[in-house]
Amino acid sequence: MDMTNPVRVALIGSGRMGSFHGRTLAQRLPGVHLAVIADPAPGAAGKLAAELAVDPAPAARAVTDPAEVFADPDVDAVVIAAPARFHTDLVVAAAAAGKDTFCEKPMALSLADADRALAAVRDAGTLLQIGFNRRFAADWHAARGLLDSGDLGTPRQIRSLTRDPGGFDPSRVAPGTIFNETLIHDFDTLRYLNPGARAVRVFATATATVEPDWRDRGLQDTATVLVEFDNGAVGIAEACFEAAYGYDVRGELFAAGGMATMGDGRSTGLVFSHTGGRSVSTARSDQELLDAAYVAELAAFTAAVRRRAAAPGAERNPAIADGTDARAALEIALAAAESVRTGRAVRLDGVTGAGA
Amino acid sequence: MDMTNPVRVALIGSGRMGSFHGRTLAQRLPGVHLAVIADPAPGAAGKLAAELAVDPAPAARAVTDPAEVFADPDVDAVVIAAPARFHTDLVVAAAAAGKDTFCEKPMALSLADADRALAAVRDAGTLLQIGFNRRFAADWHAARGLLDSGDLGTPRQIRSLTRDPGGFDPSRVAPGTIFNETLIHDFDTLRYLNPGARAVRVFATATATVEPDWRDRGLQDTATVLVEFDNGAVGIAEACFEAAYGYDVRGELFAAGGMATMGDGRSTGLVFSHTGGRSVSTARSDQELLDAAYVAELAAFTAAVRRRAAAPGAERNPAIADGTDARAALEIALAAAESVRTGRAVRLDGVTGAGA
Amino acid sequence: MDMTNPVRVALIGSGRMGSFHGRTLAQRLPGVHLAVIADPAPGAAGKLAAELAVDPAPAARAVTDPAEVFADPDVDAVVIAAPARFHTDLVVAAAAAGKDTFCEKPMALSLADADRALAAVRDAGTLLQIGFNRRFAADWHAARGLLDSGDLGTPRQIRSLTRDPGGFDPSRVAPGTIFNETLIHDFDTLRYLNPGARAVRVFATATATVEPDWRDRGLQDTATVLVEFDNGAVGIAEACFEAAYGYDVRGELFAAGGMATMGDGRSTGLVFSHTGGRSVSTARSDQELLDAAYVAELAAFTAAVRRRAAAPGAERNPAIADGTDARAALEIALAAAESVRTGRAVRLDGVTGAGA
Amino acid sequence: MDMTNPVRVALIGSGRMGSFHGRTLAQRLPGVHLAVIADPAPGAAGKLAAELAVDPAPAARAVTDPAEVFADPDVDAVVIAAPARFHTDLVVAAAAAGKDTFCEKPMALSLADADRALAAVRDAGTLLQIGFNRRFAADWHAARGLLDSGDLGTPRQIRSLTRDPGGFDPSRVAPGTIFNETLIHDFDTLRYLNPGARAVRVFATATATVEPDWRDRGLQDTATVLVEFDNGAVGIAEACFEAAYGYDVRGELFAAGGMATMGDGRSTGLVFSHTGGRSVSTARSDQELLDAAYVAELAAFTAAVRRRAAAPGAERNPAIADGTDARAALEIALAAAESVRTGRAVRLDGVTGAGA
Repeated sequence: MDMTNPVRVALIGSGRMGSFHGRTLAQRLPGVHLAVIADPAPGAAGKLAAELAVDPAPAARAVTDPAEVFADPDVDAVVIAAPARFHTDLVVAAAAAGKDTFCEKPMALSLADADRALAAVRDAGTLLQIGFNRRFAADWHAARGLLDSGDLGTPRQIRSLTRDPGGFDPSRVAPGTIFNETLIHDFDTLRYLNPGARAVRVFATATATVEPDWRDRGLQDTATVLVEFDNGAVGIAEACFEAAYGYDVRGELFAAGGMATMGDGRSTGLVFSHTGGRSVSTARSDQELLDAAYVAELAAFTAAVRRRAAAPGAERNPAIADGTDARAALEIALAAAESVRTGRAVRLDGVTGAGA
Repeated sequence: MDMTNPVRVALIGSGRMGSFHGRTLAQRLPGVHLAVIADPAPGAAGKLAAELAVDPAPAARAVTDPAEVFADPDVDAVVIAAPARFHTDLVVAAAAAGKDTFCEKPMALSLADADRALAAVRDAGTLLQIGFNRRFAADWHAARGLLDSGDLGTPRQIRSLTRDPGGFDPSRVAPGTIFNETLIHDFDTLRYLNPGARAVRVFATATATVEPDWRDRGLQDTATVLVEFDNGAVGIAEACFEAAYGYDVRGELFAAGGMATMGDGRSTGLVFSHTGGRSVSTARSDQELLDAAYVAELAAFTAAVRRRAAAPGAERNPAIADGTDARAALEIALAAAESVRTGRAVRLDGVTGAGA
Repeated sequence: MDMTNPVRVALIGSGRMGSFHGRTLAQRLPGVHLAVIADPAPGAAGKLAAELAVDPAPAARAVTDPAEVFADPDVDAVVIAAPARFHTDLVVAAAAAGKDTFCEKPMALSLADADRALAAVRDAGTLLQIGFNRRFAADWHAARGLLDSGDLGTPRQIRSLTRDPGGFDPSRVAPGTIFNETLIHDFDTLRYLNPGARAVRVFATATATVEPDWRDRGLQDTATVLVEFDNGAVGIAEACFEAAYGYDVRGELFAAGGMATMGDGRSTGLVFSHTGGRSVSTARSDQELLDAAYVAELAAFTAAVRRRAAAPGAERNPAIADGTDARAALEIALAAAESVRTGRAVRLDGVTGAGA
Repeated sequence: MDMTNPVRVALIGSGRMGSFHGRTLAQRLPGVHLAVIADPAPGAAGKLAAELAVDPAPAARAVTDPAEVFADPDVDAVVIAAPARFHTDLVVAAAAAGKDTFCEKPMALSLADADRALAAVRDAGTLLQIGFNRRFAADWHAARGLLDSGDLGTPRQIRSLTRDPGGFDPSRVAPGTIFNETLIHDFDTLRYLNPGARAVRVFATATATVEPDWRDRGLQDTATVLVEFDNGAVGIAEACFEAAYGYDVRGELFAAGGMATMGDGRSTGLVFSHTGGRSVSTARSDQELLDAAYVAELAAFTAAVRRRAAAPGAERNPAIADGTDARAALEIALAAAESVRTGRAVRLDGVTGAGA
């Protein structure tokens, strides 16, 4: 990797994930420069830029209008961490400006938007990577390795779950959030762990179990989704907005050759045996549990940007989720929401991409 | 427990589970006498009786006709381990004869038969315990304890799975077997871990993944079932007739107060670290993995028989599954089969008993 | 095994371990009869006999004088669970009476006594098995299997530890107890896991850490012993009379081919994840943790008695510790006590038997 | 932390650990500049400097004479990763030049040298941190936290071990290496986990078990050391130059309030269940297993340098081992070597510092 030719990245969005990605870009990836931070909130970008500045690199330039990012010839790539509803437009604009793009999930909230983003990226010939972090988490990556090596054989039953540590405000949960923003990770994971297969039918349940008083108002804080694939494998995706024991991301891949179990959840390896038994501590947030995966996905992105600059036809890193993967996961998410609405299994007819 | 007043038990069926239960009754439960073994296959009962005989107790009497068991005044209770299709008639006959009854699952293969068995037992006032072994497996029993104590709070997502070690003959798998004979354990487990709740809707998938060539002939060797309960909890039951790594029975109970994880699968606690990494060995059969549970369920049964003899109105051991539990699990199993047939979620309208 | 020819066993001692062994003999080993219980305390034997009686076997005969046991032609074997200081005399008397003998550790408290016992048994040609339970605990047995199969290769560093759950009375701990009664298990374990090697040098420390106020009065409630073997392997044995988290017995065998880790300590496989982290419960007593091993050692003993009766020259079960093993472990225990007294490493010159 | 005022560090030594520390300084610690690399081997420093260069920071200046480092006013601190025999002179020279110093273990190979280093640092008033990595490994740090919080209570038995993955050349192992370079980590760890206590007596064994043919030539590739502390706690330190299963660093702290177990050894959380059982992969090198600890110790060092520059009297980070800790660990190492030579326990009379 030619570190004397740094990758110059712009960050759009300086919220919770934007700040985390900003720190990764500014301080944790050698050969990567955080060049610009864009956030429409007055002062937000500048505040983050100052926090992340490390001598001798100049602090990131702060702007309020993302258009400035796209117009900047000194920006090689953008990382989109704005609210979900802006993702598609930003992806399209980044592609139009010829910028390689990392976009936090979801890439879109409708299939039409997903197709619009895909078309823009295809026309521009730019890179697009989606923030499906589990592809870069060590356990999942190793499980995929056991598939690719043939050790696991054909998948039969796959499980992926995400449980958040709680503390959400039920009044601020938009409809579909648990499918589009939480379970979308798990839908992608099911696909990642069943490469080459296509999801064909989805059945889902969702209700409010954390805040049962909000059940009548339609809150969905807990959901379980069954996904059938065309190779006979069945995936289960589970999510809940509150787990008493912290942030919980795990998976299980049962296949002809055996089973891979992913996700440990411990915050250290220390085991404490005491009068009450034996205990380990558990991770309390995604940024604690998935710290390495979050860094690895941006390392892979910036490496791909660099590689594409050096050799435009270079092969894609198979761990990198692209726009077709985003569309395929979205299709499952939308079908899951429809299944809850109708009480029926929903058949997927579309082409879900050649992704995974 | 008054060991000088032994419980005299007859065993019906001397096959794989019958032999195991026979050994438990003859050799592993103090104060219990295996008095009779009935099996219509010529010589089978006598052969098992001879194998299990231990001085100074007389060997079990061997008969070919179960009617002899029911007519025998020196038999206090019967253990039914005949093939599934005979279970209901045997339960009814045992009740009519006033014999307390332990019946291997399933108690029945239709709701009409289940109701017939329930009526017979109710009319006779006899005990009926169903062989739902996980209620007597230490991990599951402890998980239920965490529910009963209030530590776990209200269940949200429950998982129960059974994976057999393989080696089945696809030509001999009767339709519905995976639901009626395998997953019925998991359906009961979901209910056991969600006490007081009622299953209201079932969605299921099933296909042949172990023997995909048999898919066209309708083989179902792998199934995943989603069960919704009236308290908002959702259960997932998974089964497969072959796991490369042995016999696998596990569960997870995610609730408001935390999560209980059941089932370890290791055959010993020995860990071997070697050039290839670190390994433990895994259990290879149900009788290895669930040995203690199989003994415990018969210990509970014979203790209940003894207790009822001493104090007819005594309270039921809550770990003991009765006929209403068997009916409730069967209702889910039948709904699951129907769901696979129709591709739709099946609503459960009936009363599923006050069991669990 | 010919169950119609039961092994008739007499139990000497009805205390904590005597009661446990009595229950095993009376109720948990098919084909074994607990024929007599001897205890000099008036009424003690009779009380235990009544507790353990199970129809249709007659209750064990209760006597106060062990001599009655030895004189009884209807006793095939004896299990000695009297206080340690009586062990040697009882072993000698049992041998003189031609009774096969299971003796709780330690067999003797001096090498002279050990030699006396060995001579008596050799002269009588009887069986003698010592209650070194870890040889019958699944993990340890499997570790020895990895040695015997060659998978582990030559041992390099071996660890064995015993930590009791506490609650002892410091005023009643006889000098040497931690070596002769507790660590003697670990000394035997080190030998069991280093077959064919001979202990050649011992260095030990011991003090009062549980009851530090008793340090000046010579209490030894915590000890660490280093044992060198003639094949270059080094063993560490650790003991403490109190562990806050329960009863703890573990081991580690590091060898050329890898490492075996023995002892899990969990009381069930249930894992509870809660607001404080993730917990398992731990075993609280030896009889909980080693239940299966205690039964297995008496099963092996009675099987050996039966086998010897049938075929006097039959080969010994290598898991069975005999008198030479008891002497070898005692030699280490005595050297450890001497090492603490003198502050020096103590060289073992004697022949420690061909045991393990 | 004021990142606009970077800490400028010089690295002395560009071998295995030097390269690793160099990468950490150049690429993984924001606000830290690798300013100079010194290595007497022609071209070595320049080669490493080129490898580590990351735009926009200038590449580290490469020199062959460490004296240039000490004379350079633009160097704030030095990291010494030269061969062990040069450590003391380099520490002394760095102190004389007023440079804060991180020195890989061991700081010295004799107590006289250790005292010389301590005096130089004391006279100069500079910082000195020793590379005792386990103080910065998460599990050990958390265990110390349980001590500091009082949860663990007084230590009773402590264990620390280091097993290398093998591949060493027996002809190149200097006498004392296993004590001075390997076990010195474990001696420090025992002290770190028994804060405030003083080691008073040491008994050690060492021989060649990996390369037994070298036993006669005095090779020591396997050692076990027993360390007594003045508070009654006993530590066991174990080392071996070859473990079939990889690099193994673990510890156990048994105390009045319970037990902490440190070191997991797994390379990921992935568990693979297959026809042979259940497996996890294990770490194969120190740089894999201790990656985070190696980074954390330099992060702590550079933070301390920065803090001292800002506030000269600031309190020391208690995780940071200083020269008195290095001397105390060395005293144990030398006593261990003497114990092997003499076959006796060696009493420590010196003052071992107020370190830990």
